[in-house]
Amino acid sequence: MDTPFTPAFKNVEIITIGDEIVNGQIVDSNSAWIASFLNRSGFEVNKITSVPDNAQAIFQALDSALAGSGIVLMTGGLGPTKDDITKHCLCTYFNTKLVFNQAVYDNMTELFNKRGLWAINSFNRSQAEVPEACTVIINRKGTAAVSWFEQDGKILVSMPGVPLEMMWCMEKEIMPRLLSKVQSHPIIQRYIWVKGYPEAVLAEFISDWEDALPPELKLAYLPQRSVMLLRLTAKNSDETRLNELLDSHLDKLKSLLGTAIFAEGVKSLEEALGQVLSNKGLSLALAESCTGGAVGARLTRAPGSSAYFLGGIISYANQVKQELLAVPELILQTKGAVSKEVAEAMANGVRIKLKSDIGIALSGIAGPTGGSIGKPVGTVFIALADSEQVMCRKFEFQSDRIGNIEQAVHQALILLLDYLYL
Amino acid sequence: MDTPFTPAFKNVEIITIGDEIVNGQIVDSNSAWIASFLNRSGFEVNKITSVPDNAQAIFQALDSALAGSGIVLMTGGLGPTKDDITKHCLCTYFNTKLVFNQAVYDNMTELFNKRGLWAINSFNRSQAEVPEACTVIINRKGTAAVSWFEQDGKILVSMPGVPLEMMWCMEKEIMPRLLSKVQSHPIIQRYIWVKGYPEAVLAEFISDWEDALPPELKLAYLPQRSVMLLRLTAKNSDETRLNELLDSHLDKLKSLLGTAIFAEGVKSLEEALGQVLSNKGLSLALAESCTGGAVGARLTRAPGSSAYFLGGIISYANQVKQELLAVPELILQTKGAVSKEVAEAMANGVRIKLKSDIGIALSGIAGPTGGSIGKPVGTVFIALADSEQVMCRKFEFQSDRIGNIEQAVHQALILLLDYLYL
Repeated sequence: MDTPFTPAFKNVEIITIGDEIVNGQIVDSNSAWIASFLNRSGFEVNKITSVPDNAQAIFQALDSALAGSGIVLMTGGLGPTKDDITKHCLCTYFNTKLVFNQAVYDNMTELFNKRGLWAINSFNRSQAEVPEACTVIINRKGTAAVSWFEQDGKILVSMPGVPLEMMWCMEKEIMPRLLSKVQSHPIIQRYIWVKGYPEAVLAEFISDWEDALPPELKLAYLPQRSVMLLRLTAKNSDETRLNELLDSHLDKLKSLLGTAIFAEGVKSLEEALGQVLSNKGLSLALAESCTGGAVGARLTRAPGSSAYFLGGIISYANQVKQELLAVPELILQTKGAVSKEVAEAMANGVRIKLKSDIGIALSGIAGPTGGSIGKPVGTVFIALADSEQVMCRKFEFQSDRIGNIEQAVHQALILLLDYLYL
Repeated sequence: MDTPFTPAFKNVEIITIGDEIVNGQIVDSNSAWIASFLNRSGFEVNKITSVPDNAQAIFQALDSALAGSGIVLMTGGLGPTKDDITKHCLCTYFNTKLVFNQAVYDNMTELFNKRGLWAINSFNRSQAEVPEACTVIINRKGTAAVSWFEQDGKILVSMPGVPLEMMWCMEKEIMPRLLSKVQSHPIIQRYIWVKGYPEAVLAEFISDWEDALPPELKLAYLPQRSVMLLRLTAKNSDETRLNELLDSHLDKLKSLLGTAIFAEGVKSLEEALGQVLSNKGLSLALAESCTGGAVGARLTRAPGSSAYFLGGIISYANQVKQELLAVPELILQTKGAVSKEVAEAMANGVRIKLKSDIGIALSGIAGPTGGSIGKPVGTVFIALADSEQVMCRKFEFQSDRIGNIEQAVHQALILLLDYLYL
């Protein structure tokens, strides 16, 4: 296994294993993390497959992946319980058997001692049994080891599905080995945020520019509801040339679109807004009712958000709206908590209370209950106040509770964006 | 197309199409939603595949899906821009061509009129061109139509990737047609929340019970970090019998595990905690610093959370900690904002300010910057106060910003759980 080795081709397929993925119990966020992490090191993912904890499904996925890709990365199905069958399947597939591995067992003992409390039982002990015909890599964050197979010029790696363990294994153990075995090529991505153009209008407007892109550059439209994120990906050349190509074509795009571009170089709308707020030196506070903190959570995903985000008040109960946000009881009684007047009073109240330049407030009915004929489930008022004015928008979202909250969060960001460019 | 029709087998494969999925730009949440929605109607998903906007990859995915499943549901690649190629691929694959569809165009006109502002351009108009050899289904929430193909006893449906449009199409158009064509069978799932047992210990403890499960029942362990969610799935019989089997085996499990079961019938930890808080008649308020509202957002995902969650204060800036939460300036200066003392003062402060039974507070360093030698990135203090006591836990998470926040949110819920059962 120490001889130089290059997979037949460096494209990667990801296989995630687990009943909970294919029945929709959980969203498979491991794949996206792995794909993004691989991309940054110049690897490309050409397929992601999720299959249940079922031997036949796992064998078919292995066949298909190894036929189509040089590198196959698998997660999941390595736990100590009876529904975890991945390593048994790998033994069958690679015609090998499980053997006890002392190093894996020692790592397990160490983890158990560090965490205290429980003794290793037979279920745990079975996790120290690993396929014989592979390189075993110790997972320092958990009890399931990584198995690294090489066969017919291809690499197959099976790793745990617990996200933190998977991330540690990818960063510390798997990526360094991949990079030592596979010549990767740079992939450079640039991001541009555009407001005010529906997708098709933008596509038509920049059509000539897009048609003139060299084969090394590829444009993608990534609509974020009412704003557009453009991604320009450069590959198949050296880094210097790719950066030159990106610079020159992005310069042309910028002169075409002018001030419709409101941010660049960041992947999320909250980071894009953070750029604008920082540049303008404005601070922000939130008063959240139906969203329960989700707008604040979204804003603080952006690193450095403390430069412009002061905080907020989650006024889920009416008493909190009155006492902390100074919403007059009379307005609450006559207009109701879900109203333009209350949202505006909340926005102003939080702005004054937290001494921010801008206050944003949301009040609505996320559902599934609480709706009425005049104010159905999905009704949300979003208000923005500065020291001179208050504006408010009314929405009637038609999704479920989670979807209504998510849309309200997005529309709060859009209201802020529109305000910043009014 | 109106003749009775039954796919060769009723298993479903989902194909999601988009460069942004395989390069990790977005997490494919459509698949999980579709899978969960199908499950509730008795359909089972046996594979989920994600491929880039690339004809060869799409053809291979189609081949594999149609070989393995009776029903194939695809999302994505139906936008008006040049990177969207799904319907061209479907035409090649099914040996047909694109034709202009007046009903799709009329729907587009109506949507454009309703939303105002822009005229339909050539890019939009191209969305009214649909494959000739399929049943076209109008998508009332967007401009991309649904294509429904039937061939060799199988069904293939291509729908838009925009989540809200996809959900509307699935609920209003696709599922009713699937149910009219395919005999589905009930799948019933029950959920049990268990605390205090690591996975392997629990597995050993309930091993005899698990071994005695009839073939109609399947157990899955879904660890949520330090608590365990058990899912019991019942299928391959009629609803009455499945419910009887579930009742009798769950009764046995409950007498085995006793008070280690803290909630049942709900899928998320926040709903499980909501059950406990409601049962005990306790109210809760939050003071969030590094999490920026994420704990509140998590709690309010649970329907009916207003019964126990009063709200909170997002004290991102120190000034807010002092003025709204009454954290003494001296403590902030001597101990630092990220400290046991400040977290405890915040928990007590928010409890008193919002007049709740319980106050929970978080203060920490999410990263990527702001760490120091004594308090590295990932250090988070989480405190809980009631009228008689304050408790605090210190964590040193080792993930990135988003991961550290996510773990802090989870640990805040675990602290609450432990408090409720102390």
